[in-house]
Amino acid sequence: MDENLTVLAPGILGASVARAARKHGAAGRIQVWARRPEIRVQLEETGWFDKVAATPAEAVAGATLVVVCAPVPAIPRLADEIRTSLGPDAVVTDVGSVKGSLCRKIDYSYGGKTVFVGSHPMAGSEKTGHENSSDDLFAGRAVFVTPLAETPAAATDRVVRFWTTLGGEVVTCHPDKHDEIVANISHLPQVLASALCSFLSTRDLSWRNYAGNGLRDTTRIAASDAKLWRGILEENRHEVMRALAGMQDELQAIQAAMANGDFLEVLNRLERGSAYRKSLRPGKGEA
Amino acid sequence: MDENLTVLAPGILGASVARAARKHGAAGRIQVWARRPEIRVQLEETGWFDKVAATPAEAVAGATLVVVCAPVPAIPRLADEIRTSLGPDAVVTDVGSVKGSLCRKIDYSYGGKTVFVGSHPMAGSEKTGHENSSDDLFAGRAVFVTPLAETPAAATDRVVRFWTTLGGEVVTCHPDKHDEIVANISHLPQVLASALCSFLSTRDLSWRNYAGNGLRDTTRIAASDAKLWRGILEENRHEVMRALAGMQDELQAIQAAMANGDFLEVLNRLERGSAYRKSLRPGKGEA
Repeated sequence: MDENLTVLAPGILGASVARAARKHGAAGRIQVWARRPEIRVQLEETGWFDKVAATPAEAVAGATLVVVCAPVPAIPRLADEIRTSLGPDAVVTDVGSVKGSLCRKIDYSYGGKTVFVGSHPMAGSEKTGHENSSDDLFAGRAVFVTPLAETPAAATDRVVRFWTTLGGEVVTCHPDKHDEIVANISHLPQVLASALCSFLSTRDLSWRNYAGNGLRDTTRIAASDAKLWRGILEENRHEVMRALAGMQDELQAIQAAMANGDFLEVLNRLERGSAYRKSLRPGKGEA
Repeated sequence: MDENLTVLAPGILGASVARAARKHGAAGRIQVWARRPEIRVQLEETGWFDKVAATPAEAVAGATLVVVCAPVPAIPRLADEIRTSLGPDAVVTDVGSVKGSLCRKIDYSYGGKTVFVGSHPMAGSEKTGHENSSDDLFAGRAVFVTPLAETPAAATDRVVRFWTTLGGEVVTCHPDKHDEIVANISHLPQVLASALCSFLSTRDLSWRNYAGNGLRDTTRIAASDAKLWRGILEENRHEVMRALAGMQDELQAIQAAMANGDFLEVLNRLERGSAYRKSLRPGKGEA
């Protein structure tokens, strides 16, 4: 393919985008830019890219596809900053975990000149930074692409093709629908894992020495970057609060059943949960 | 060591006990018994043991250490069933996830003749059955040993030595203290994982196709045997309900902070959770 790719603010996701694009021949030239000079020096030393640019404007010069990988609250600002440097055929996308307000904000700021199409690969990790990137991070992972009604189909197609070439399984849906879905299957699990760890940190700290794999698995993502998640939860607060309320009802029902000695009801919910978990497709390294 | 080991009802834990004992030379002769004849036939074919006995009484004849590996509600009955077949020096232990009422029940039924010392290795899994056993399941894992005040120290020492030889990191504590600890670090995570899956099963089922690793990790143990966990939650209901109430307060506080737009408070809790998770010792295969 003859996309000229630019990745702005490459952390674990952005660096993986660039490396996967190289591996799969999804782009001709690959340029990146990072805000912090020390990261730019590190990125140059990796040899993964054709050029590490000093400014966003320099990085997007000649680009046909730009992937903005900054944290959610910083994406609209960065997208706006590159606006005047983009060529007429450039398509801009991102990897942000919240899409509704973001897609509307950027679409408005671009005013129909350049095209923005939101993306969100479900390939997060509790790890951060380009040093944790991988050229097969998107293999077999769901990738949301979230055009608005007025987004030109040709631009959406290019973004869909790009992620597909990287090994992702693309799902297109409206940005608001995306936000509802990830509030339930991604943001709610994060809140639960963080809340469990926050709660346990108020109990006897020596107990952590006895942790089994159950606690480790259940709380792995609680180690994620707190500031990053604060931004995601704030941006998607209404959908997350709705999901959290539903989850609290579920816990309340279990608590009530236990208090009433109704362990058939407890069993019903355990069985329903077990059936759901077994119906998930296995992840990498799972049997 | 010259323990003659008997494992009753070997599933993943019991078969792992016997195999680890063989690997580490923790026992001379190893005998097992399973309730279902088809399992006994399978166990014979593994060649892991010296003998697969047809009855519990036959299995414990000549044993110096008996490990009862039945589900929690079935342990007291099985311990009682072997009472008259045990030799005078035999020590009986188990691998049950709840200890308080169980240890008192068995201690009472044994009436000081034979000695029961409760054990609980923190080596659970969502998997079940001897076919998922491993001879290094206990390596580096915490193993609770829970003597009562009146338990003879020599018997406790033998059980502690046994688990240590199998690679476990033994922690002795009172059965009731054990129940409080595991309610928080094991039973509460199980309830949360199961409740999350139970809740998600009430939403749009197609969403599960988009699950990332975060949801997979957070809910892995929800696939566990529901009947097994019903028994554990019922046996430890008071401590689990206390832990669950604390967790609900934590979620309520996060929900309230989000509703009030107080994302500094949300950040505080995310950061507290992240610090706690990072303070857990890495598990097998974790960086």
